[in-house]
Amino acid sequence: MKYISLLGSTGSIGTQTLDVIRTNPDFFRLTALSCGTNIELAIQQIQEFQPALVSVQREEDVDLIKKEVPASVTVISGEDGLMEVACHQDADILVNAVIGSVGLKPTLAAIKAGRDIAIANKETLVTAGHIVTTEANKHGVSLIPVDSEHSAIFQALNGEDPKTIERLIVTASGGSFRDQTRDELHGVTVEQALAHPNWSMGAKITIDSATMMNKGLEVIEAHWLFGIPYDQIDVLMHRESIIHSMIEFVDKSVMAQLGTADMRVPIQYALTYPNRLAREKGERLNLWEMEKLHFNKLDMDRYRCMKFAYEAGRSAGTMPTVLNAANEAAVAAFLNQQISFLEIEDLIEHSLNRHERIHSPSLEEIIHADEETRQFVQSKL
Amino acid sequence: MKYISLLGSTGSIGTQTLDVIRTNPDFFRLTALSCGTNIELAIQQIQEFQPALVSVQREEDVDLIKKEVPASVTVISGEDGLMEVACHQDADILVNAVIGSVGLKPTLAAIKAGRDIAIANKETLVTAGHIVTTEANKHGVSLIPVDSEHSAIFQALNGEDPKTIERLIVTASGGSFRDQTRDELHGVTVEQALAHPNWSMGAKITIDSATMMNKGLEVIEAHWLFGIPYDQIDVLMHRESIIHSMIEFVDKSVMAQLGTADMRVPIQYALTYPNRLAREKGERLNLWEMEKLHFNKLDMDRYRCMKFAYEAGRSAGTMPTVLNAANEAAVAAFLNQQISFLEIEDLIEHSLNRHERIHSPSLEEIIHADEETRQFVQSKL
Repeated sequence: MKYISLLGSTGSIGTQTLDVIRTNPDFFRLTALSCGTNIELAIQQIQEFQPALVSVQREEDVDLIKKEVPASVTVISGEDGLMEVACHQDADILVNAVIGSVGLKPTLAAIKAGRDIAIANKETLVTAGHIVTTEANKHGVSLIPVDSEHSAIFQALNGEDPKTIERLIVTASGGSFRDQTRDELHGVTVEQALAHPNWSMGAKITIDSATMMNKGLEVIEAHWLFGIPYDQIDVLMHRESIIHSMIEFVDKSVMAQLGTADMRVPIQYALTYPNRLAREKGERLNLWEMEKLHFNKLDMDRYRCMKFAYEAGRSAGTMPTVLNAANEAAVAAFLNQQISFLEIEDLIEHSLNRHERIHSPSLEEIIHADEETRQFVQSKL
Repeated sequence: MKYISLLGSTGSIGTQTLDVIRTNPDFFRLTALSCGTNIELAIQQIQEFQPALVSVQREEDVDLIKKEVPASVTVISGEDGLMEVACHQDADILVNAVIGSVGLKPTLAAIKAGRDIAIANKETLVTAGHIVTTEANKHGVSLIPVDSEHSAIFQALNGEDPKTIERLIVTASGGSFRDQTRDELHGVTVEQALAHPNWSMGAKITIDSATMMNKGLEVIEAHWLFGIPYDQIDVLMHRESIIHSMIEFVDKSVMAQLGTADMRVPIQYALTYPNRLAREKGERLNLWEMEKLHFNKLDMDRYRCMKFAYEAGRSAGTMPTVLNAANEAAVAAFLNQQISFLEIEDLIEHSLNRHERIHSPSLEEIIHADEETRQFVQSKL
């Protein structure tokens, strides 16, 4: 039996994590969860899984929840609550499925408490990769990827010597606008951007896929998770998202993980690693039904966010922090219909250009750079 | 330093094995080799690699070789010679690259001598899989596949629990006549059959690819190497031969090995397993250069040899022995222009239909069934 605490229970990864737990009651049990503002769904989840501890974002929702759930469930709130769920003493592993760099502090708290982390919260690794990985090494904590691309690399690396990696090949579907030119992106709507061709995901990551910033963040995430230099991380356009990612080894052998577009596979793998657990009702990949898989070279001029991400990653220091904060703020503004789709890129570029890089920032300096960048983006709306 | 003995040095796998050794003189050394009748090439190889022991097929070639190579090289001949090379005391591993069931006895001798075997000689596993695998288990000997498909599965299995395999997916290019209907196969020539679209290989295996018997033999080989029932081994048509094969695990995650059509990759992997060694000059797989990979369902009516192979494999006992012996004899007759291409299938079918299966045959019974089948095919020419 593996005991699990979960940050971000009502989001896309959160609900699918609960589905994995629900399907395997003999293997997994939920001990703690945190949620945001979707109280109705959270109450259902708490009633079903009866975790010992629940943390909700807003203080005023605590009583609302308490009324609906068993008295055995402790309900707390706010950032302190998030930290308590992250470090819950009964949990073997933390699934961090919050969105954005708000996941950083609870991640660090869980690492210091010695919890292994199934990490779906890529922004945490982007914004403070050097701190998170250093702390994880120091405390002997495993960071197990949940993103389908990183899970693919992680699975392909199983049994191999990481020193024999020659390059990582991260696949990219191209997102909602992959068949449009840049000129055709003027005036696209939020609704159009949210229509991802392959994956059903949350709003933020779907917009990130449309701008390709998602792939940029994943390149930085891969750099930190696997300790591979940026020159050895390639992005390959692959519109069907069937090959989730690959490793080329020094002998030129390429190992890949493939599957249907079902995030429950990498979520479950993160929870069972290094073992695998049967998914009786899981959808099989039958490649003959696809007939063809397509591959194309990435065009950095078409996808400016990819260029920003590689540049920020290579510059290191606070640059990835600024990249991520500007992106989070700009995507929120786009979803809020305050800016156009292409202005997301402009705001990120502007934020990066004006920032004075701090070489090896402390946690405080990262948090400050993050906040300062968000304020700058706000000031431009 | 790994010391290697090599059966079949002048064939396609043999010469590529020597190329791997040549490229990595700090890692590999050849201690013994056997060759057939290509004496000119064998002499060059012996002069270059200076193995301690050489065995040649025909007794009359011994003196011919002795004249041309250093006196330190012992030269012997015949089946006894083959056995001595197979069991050479200085070797850490035997590369068995002979063609046909003639490889069976030296394989068993090497297993009894405790040598790990890099096995490119699939007919040995087809003809007597139960004996070879039982002996290997008994003597704690590893059978490491060299065939690109089985190497792919072996690489994908690295770090995994074999009990979590749900199915093996063996890919098939379709061979020389994949774009022809059965009706178009009447009267095809040896030359046409030898033109494989993707791989440059020996004559026997290239004809086996054209009939798809090669894939049938590989399914039986996979059954024995990985201990997987036939119902869990699928063949997938994939014309580019880029995905060399795959494993679907119980969680529906699919692991695949990919690469260019270079047999030196799986040969070297068999010699370095579980490690990998850099191939500086190896060709990289850049999928965007391919643009597309194609997949189709296998048509058992188009490729009758596939059906024969599955049926013989499932019947077990001496049936795979007969399948293999009839195929070897028929392919030799086709290469010798004694029969037409489609008569290969007819002779195999006839051989299987007339044979009275022995359920759990001894080595002697296998050898007898093999010889008796070859005689039958001869009698039909």
